Amino acid sequence: MNRVTKLFGIDYPIIQAGMIWCSGWELAAAVSNAGGLGLIGAGSMSPVLLRAHILKCKETTDRPFGVNIPLLYPCVEQTMQVIADEGVKIVFTSGGKPDLWTSFLKDKGIKVAHVVPGAKYAAKCEAAGVDAVVAEGFEAGGHNGREETTTLCLIPRVRETVKIPLIAAGGITGGRAMLAAMVLGAEGVQLGTRFVASLESTAHIDFKQKVLECAEGGTVLALKKLAPVRLLKNKFCAEVMELESRGATPEELSALLGKGRAGKGMFEGDMENGELEIGQAASLVKEILPAGDIVRKVWNEYLRAVEEIKRNC
Amino acid sequence: MNRVTKLFGIDYPIIQAGMIWCSGWELAAAVSNAGGLGLIGAGSMSPVLLRAHILKCKETTDRPFGVNIPLLYPCVEQTMQVIADEGVKIVFTSGGKPDLWTSFLKDKGIKVAHVVPGAKYAAKCEAAGVDAVVAEGFEAGGHNGREETTTLCLIPRVRETVKIPLIAAGGITGGRAMLAAMVLGAEGVQLGTRFVASLESTAHIDFKQKVLECAEGGTVLALKKLAPVRLLKNKFCAEVMELESRGATPEELSALLGKGRAGKGMFEGDMENGELEIGQAASLVKEILPAGDIVRKVWNEYLRAVEEIKRNC
Repeated sequence: MNRVTKLFGIDYPIIQAGMIWCSGWELAAAVSNAGGLGLIGAGSMSPVLLRAHILKCKETTDRPFGVNIPLLYPCVEQTMQVIADEGVKIVFTSGGKPDLWTSFLKDKGIKVAHVVPGAKYAAKCEAAGVDAVVAEGFEAGGHNGREETTTLCLIPRVRETVKIPLIAAGGITGGRAMLAAMVLGAEGVQLGTRFVASLESTAHIDFKQKVLECAEGGTVLALKKLAPVRLLKNKFCAEVMELESRGATPEELSALLGKGRAGKGMFEGDMENGELEIGQAASLVKEILPAGDIVRKVWNEYLRAVEEIKRNC
Repeated sequence: MNRVTKLFGIDYPIIQAGMIWCSGWELAAAVSNAGGLGLIGAGSMSPVLLRAHILKCKETTDRPFGVNIPLLYPCVEQTMQVIADEGVKIVFTSGGKPDLWTSFLKDKGIKVAHVVPGAKYAAKCEAAGVDAVVAEGFEAGGHNGREETTTLCLIPRVRETVKIPLIAAGGITGGRAMLAAMVLGAEGVQLGTRFVASLESTAHIDFKQKVLECAEGGTVLALKKLAPVRLLKNKFCAEVMELESRGATPEELSALLGKGRAGKGMFEGDMENGELEIGQAASLVKEILPAGDIVRKVWNEYLRAVEEIKRNC
């Protein structure tokens, strides 16, 4: 038991990131049923669809689960209303400012965590009354900070800056990395990439397969002139990198990106022209497992790593 | 005692990186005298100057010390001859191919470590008969890999790929990060940035001061079209970033870089026009200390972090 497990009422401080297009009710419920914290990824759902996922999740688990919302998402107001109406108890917000929605949520008794890429943003979370901060390093998949601070450098900085519970994200797929993050000052970990490659994730099977095949250097932080996002290297990503190398403007990059690329890739399975968001740690993911097995496996690896320290150091 | 301390005959598996312009005999001897492994940075020294540093280091410490050589350095042949002539016992090579000089050195009974940014290069080191591999992540200062793999993702990959002793580098300034690296599979750590800000480092005092002032996001991996190098953001770095944003060619970047920028910045103290190589972990460095105190402090922090695990987990 630590502050993170107590805050969310979970058994293990292992949180499944609410990745867009990959994190529906099946994944969230499987993680929560295994004793971790599952999150429904609202960023790729209409408010109506989100409501359906929340209802299914409630049917499937009696354990705490949450919803992740990118605050720059266009339907954020209706989405927040759905969350309030359906009595969701835990919300992870990302992107945008933590003071925008925190009091709305906290007034309803909802626990709020906010994702940040740097210590100064963590301080803003604390000031806004956020319950826990997720510090996400450069190695993480999807949207990422401009400072490019890696998890190893980020966690100690956030730890010395804020007092609220700290969850580490970015580059963590297993129990050893979990212990490493805890040693640096985290009290819990959030895994995205590892759960993309789970049985229950709604990622297209071809995308899951690509994650397994991903080698070192198989991802890149791209689109920095728009909003930095870590992508699996594919045809679309090569086109982005080619444009960027030639000094393309944000407008040119926007035109190439267009609309709906992420869904096309991660959900519909267009491995050439889709936008495939994944973390560097894909190079460490070796198998597609049921999400509950992932939770138990990570926790057992963590315990074994602790035992090794006790025995050898 | 572990394989790294045994290999080098040192007390603590704490290695000072052989940073160019910052790592003369005073720093190397101070680190070695404190029980770590000090390295003279030959990359910014003529062979004649290197010989003088080796002689002074031998006078100042009876403990093992080594020399770091970037293999793409133009005087590498004469430098290797100086090392052989002076009976240096430990050499760290970086850049270039590990099979180029390893047998030359090992034939003379010299222990060889090679610095790599990825697991596939680590495998080449092992095949070349290198004694230990230094795996250096994206957050490290100075020259860096194209894959941009962070230390957190890199160490487990290298650990599962090679059997030889593994030293982690990049983002490590203290004992907690040291333990985190050990948990991930490292058997020792190499610190560069922290030792730049030591009393004995030959970095210009203004550069040391800039390191202390460095905030999150205060460094950037730049010059990727030449050879990627992590720089402290200053006027020169802003010029590089401006050129890169416009899609400059390698030739244009080379012309801007010119010759001798690193010495001008780090050694001579031109904080505007110099090239200032430093790691992301500069944001965690808070004081300039004697190098021996740094070794002892890091080791004691490591021991305290181990005790915490034993007590709390």
